[in-house]
Amino acid sequence: MLSAAQKITQDIFAPLSRESKGSAGLKDDVAVWSPGPGMEAVISTDMLVAGVHFNAADPPGLIGAKVLRNGLSDIAAKGAIPRYYFLALAIGNLTDEAWLRAFADGLAADQREFGCHLAGGDTVRTPGPVTITVTTLGEVPAGHIVRRDGARPGDSIYVTGWIGDAALGRELDHRRPRWGTMLPASDREYLLSRYRLPQPRVGTIDALRSHARASMDISGGLAGDLDLMCWASGVAAQLEAMRVPLSDSAIRALACDRRLMALCLSGGEDYEMLAAVPPEAARAFELDVRRAGVPVTRIGRFVEGREGEARVLGHYGAPLKLRRRSWTDLE
Amino acid sequence: MLSAAQKITQDIFAPLSRESKGSAGLKDDVAVWSPGPGMEAVISTDMLVAGVHFNAADPPGLIGAKVLRNGLSDIAAKGAIPRYYFLALAIGNLTDEAWLRAFADGLAADQREFGCHLAGGDTVRTPGPVTITVTTLGEVPAGHIVRRDGARPGDSIYVTGWIGDAALGRELDHRRPRWGTMLPASDREYLLSRYRLPQPRVGTIDALRSHARASMDISGGLAGDLDLMCWASGVAAQLEAMRVPLSDSAIRALACDRRLMALCLSGGEDYEMLAAVPPEAARAFELDVRRAGVPVTRIGRFVEGREGEARVLGHYGAPLKLRRRSWTDLE
Repeated sequence: MLSAAQKITQDIFAPLSRESKGSAGLKDDVAVWSPGPGMEAVISTDMLVAGVHFNAADPPGLIGAKVLRNGLSDIAAKGAIPRYYFLALAIGNLTDEAWLRAFADGLAADQREFGCHLAGGDTVRTPGPVTITVTTLGEVPAGHIVRRDGARPGDSIYVTGWIGDAALGRELDHRRPRWGTMLPASDREYLLSRYRLPQPRVGTIDALRSHARASMDISGGLAGDLDLMCWASGVAAQLEAMRVPLSDSAIRALACDRRLMALCLSGGEDYEMLAAVPPEAARAFELDVRRAGVPVTRIGRFVEGREGEARVLGHYGAPLKLRRRSWTDLE
Repeated sequence: MLSAAQKITQDIFAPLSRESKGSAGLKDDVAVWSPGPGMEAVISTDMLVAGVHFNAADPPGLIGAKVLRNGLSDIAAKGAIPRYYFLALAIGNLTDEAWLRAFADGLAADQREFGCHLAGGDTVRTPGPVTITVTTLGEVPAGHIVRRDGARPGDSIYVTGWIGDAALGRELDHRRPRWGTMLPASDREYLLSRYRLPQPRVGTIDALRSHARASMDISGGLAGDLDLMCWASGVAAQLEAMRVPLSDSAIRALACDRRLMALCLSGGEDYEMLAAVPPEAARAFELDVRRAGVPVTRIGRFVEGREGEARVLGHYGAPLKLRRRSWTDLE
């Protein structure tokens, strides 16, 4: 007597909610939850559209993992621990069980890895591209969320990991550029994997909460996201492009085509953390992030200035003009 | 320096978040919230696709209101008070400011009416139909959520308001059926308005929490949703079709075409409340719901039986066979 959508919910998604007591086995259409004593809930919501935010032809398990990691990264960037997520899924053919099972398998693997559980959702039919909304719930000690608006002049700008890999991977995936043919296959694979399966930096949660005055994950693009942090904080910034950490594969790609530097700085989908850390906390922040096994690099500093202005400096401090600041600029 | 999506967020949606302290003016991409002392959070998420769940050509303000009311109804059905909502919006043209402003105006009017505020969201571009996910947060005294799975044999089945109006309105809107031409214009307008702008029964929140053992809002269809309550509760039910409350306009439509009764019972989008109430609480429940200005009708009872089985009885108790139980059956 259950409809196709309800059967999917029970057969495919309910097993993912087993450790979410408040979800009642997805037999209800709401979940109930309370943050722990002294904690408050942190909630983010993100929408991903096939052909815009992911490749519809990608393995469905990778799509599932990417969607979930997108939400985990948002919550972790606020110094909060991800706990539950809600998934709204619009697909063309609700009876394509193989696709749905593989999608759910990707979610299941990531649930185990990151300790975050499905708590609810919705499954509907669409005549358009697959569209997925993930709403992620985390918790943070009350009053200790790390916002975007806390950066002050004199604070250092830090990023984790390596910038630009995902944008280069996206170019390889979507456009098959000439520089791709010049790269070793292992570099192409590495860059593609960084695009297809981002690594949310959940190891940095404590360090961000303990030491950062502002933080966010880099999804739009390093330059554009730094602009947003400046705008929210009412400060300006100087970003030293030569300090931006690049992977060996990205460095080899840049050797093929120098102009790719702009793509690295503005291409986004890095899911690395961008943080403002005051000078007195810089050493402790670096130590705590590295202790979590995550690389971290100081790439500039916040300065007094007009809101929403991040100057990007190239060789010998010469201003570097970026045509775009963020891969979502065209939206 | 803000992208088109960020400008929309700031210009059009941020004003809707003014009374949501934890949303930080939508300058961040997360919100922070704690339920009040002794309360827990209730969360629902729903996805609506143009051409499937609403008419893309409808006035955008009506679409906004319908999306929000959809979430309010889910939360209210659980005996919880709606507080905040998150909106993820995929549209074809992010620069269609007139559409967006009218959409936001519809939300703003409903925020005032229902005391529920925008706390966050996401706006993206899609090559497909407009797609909207609404995630609604409410709060309920801890442990007092009203689930779907609490119905017991002997409990009465209650519904609020009038059933079938919205499904008849949808037929008028989508198909221009012959019976529509036989109806007075005022009836057509009433039925269309019930489809386009559902009335979430937030007045019943206290009565549901005080007296109902199970409840849900009717979105799929009365018969199909009652099946779901039976399935979740592990009971069966007898629904007396002749007791199902119909509006005067629906009665006149049925006089044109008797077969519309099946549509009323399975057509859904009623956003009325469906509740299981034990006999000893029935009188108090009826009084409390009516005191809130909401009509309420007893339409049958739950009985022992196989899970997921609601028998629909017609004239003289003869079983009524419905080809569909819910308008989402085809999904």
